[in-house]
Amino acid sequence: MSSELARIEELSRLFGATLAGGGGVVVGIGDDAAVLEGNLVWTIDEQVEGTHFRRDLASWRDIGWRSFMAAASDLAAMGAAPWCALSALALPADLDDAALAELAAGQADAARAIGASIVGGNLARAERVSITTTLLGRAAHPVLRSGAKPGDSLWLAGAVGHAAAGLRILNASAGAPASAGAIAQALLAWRRPVARIADGLHLAGAAHAAVDISDGLARDAGHIAQASGARLILDAAALEADDVLVVAAAAAGASPLDLALHGGEDYALLAAGPGPLEGFRRVGDVIGGAGVALRTPRGIEAIDPRGFDHFD
Amino acid sequence: MSSELARIEELSRLFGATLAGGGGVVVGIGDDAAVLEGNLVWTIDEQVEGTHFRRDLASWRDIGWRSFMAAASDLAAMGAAPWCALSALALPADLDDAALAELAAGQADAARAIGASIVGGNLARAERVSITTTLLGRAAHPVLRSGAKPGDSLWLAGAVGHAAAGLRILNASAGAPASAGAIAQALLAWRRPVARIADGLHLAGAAHAAVDISDGLARDAGHIAQASGARLILDAAALEADDVLVVAAAAAGASPLDLALHGGEDYALLAAGPGPLEGFRRVGDVIGGAGVALRTPRGIEAIDPRGFDHFD
Repeated sequence: MSSELARIEELSRLFGATLAGGGGVVVGIGDDAAVLEGNLVWTIDEQVEGTHFRRDLASWRDIGWRSFMAAASDLAAMGAAPWCALSALALPADLDDAALAELAAGQADAARAIGASIVGGNLARAERVSITTTLLGRAAHPVLRSGAKPGDSLWLAGAVGHAAAGLRILNASAGAPASAGAIAQALLAWRRPVARIADGLHLAGAAHAAVDISDGLARDAGHIAQASGARLILDAAALEADDVLVVAAAAAGASPLDLALHGGEDYALLAAGPGPLEGFRRVGDVIGGAGVALRTPRGIEAIDPRGFDHFD
Repeated sequence: MSSELARIEELSRLFGATLAGGGGVVVGIGDDAAVLEGNLVWTIDEQVEGTHFRRDLASWRDIGWRSFMAAASDLAAMGAAPWCALSALALPADLDDAALAELAAGQADAARAIGASIVGGNLARAERVSITTTLLGRAAHPVLRSGAKPGDSLWLAGAVGHAAAGLRILNASAGAPASAGAIAQALLAWRRPVARIADGLHLAGAAHAAVDISDGLARDAGHIAQASGARLILDAAALEADDVLVVAAAAAGASPLDLALHGGEDYALLAAGPGPLEGFRRVGDVIGGAGVALRTPRGIEAIDPRGFDHFD
């Protein structure tokens, strides 16, 4: 089976052949979200039991919340303001009414938290729970993955590696570790991520390119590098300067830098531009070339490409 | 576990509490699609392996086609013109690249057939194939489920019962019956349904209410009855006057009337209004009261509520 990226390329080719259809498409496949005429930004995300979550590691309310925020994060990365959402739920026979109500309440909590309205959806029977959320947002000047230029700085809003640390801690402790301080923050980062809508709204007119960090910083930075035809250099020191990450990584038995580079599901935002950007901190540079590399005290180093791939 | 309708009511309550969010919502949960300001009509539909399709009964290209048309049919029922779509695919490890390419090609075929552009999507790993399609359409005057009035006639565009007959024949013959004529039409109705977009566009300004027939005529007619606060009387003779249905039902070992009333997945359109409606034939009346009943030579009879319910 091909990698996720190879499959997306094949789908882009097949679906791209339909683009003559309705007209009014500003940006099609290949960014965090599609852009349609009328300043509309549109995305869809699916969270599947066994792939993205397990019942023993989070409450149904958490699962509803994080599935909604995962979709909303794509709007944040485009600099869009959330507007409306539809929710498609695939539910097994053993999911009772109380669990469904909690799941939906988590989605509704998340929608309210970012000012979106859930205006419809779909219910279907399945063997495993699957939560598919589509969101429409509005942006007068959407920020794409392309557009990063040599000379730009890289800017990060939100933490990276916290959610991955939290998930490792949960897995190691069978779901209910005693927690406080940094560890509690890491658990919350995985269970209750927050799409960085307000930070995203600062991107318009200020950033040249942006992406949200769902699959890991190194991998998602690669999307900007590829779309922009540039090379992204991440500063190891800037990524490691995070006390919560250091403590949580130790508890998770992982290196802070590994978690920062490859841990997904934090839904931080990475942007390229001259900066400074309100709400963002500087974490690297854009230069000529291709790919993503790391600046360490030893010099520029390659990054082992270990981001999450659904199909590798 | 509650019925699908009870669950939708609970979700409507929870999601309805988010409606203050983004504003600009003309019609929220409870119709075939949501209506947003800017003449936008928006729907989502999910087709799950084992629930909506089996690999041995249809090709991947058929499965892609019918999943797309199932979503597009909601736009037809609103009198909307399709515009753009997003496709979220959940794929098991054993689905190879060729199968995925065929599935996506079927979606692209369907999109082209109705003039829609597929502008993005999502890929996720799952144990079973699941295809979630969200479509945006445009309608200056969307037709809702509410609005049917006593004195209206009922109008049907497209056949009912064909797809259910086709599915029964496929199930009985382990997937590959010799077929010709009416039976071939029934198989095609199940494998390659077509959303009745052109018929739907005749509804605006002419029909008081409409719905698409995905779960069975009796059940979907009930949505108009409930939303409109009226009683719908379907004419048995009008439903049985269908040569293909009669022949295919005999091959399927079922009653034509049963298939017409309870067979789903034909994606016909049912409308209420004074008529006549171009592309539609008259199949009954709207009177005062509630629910759906059948007019037979013996008089008005109750309909056994056997439409497809995912959770009963």
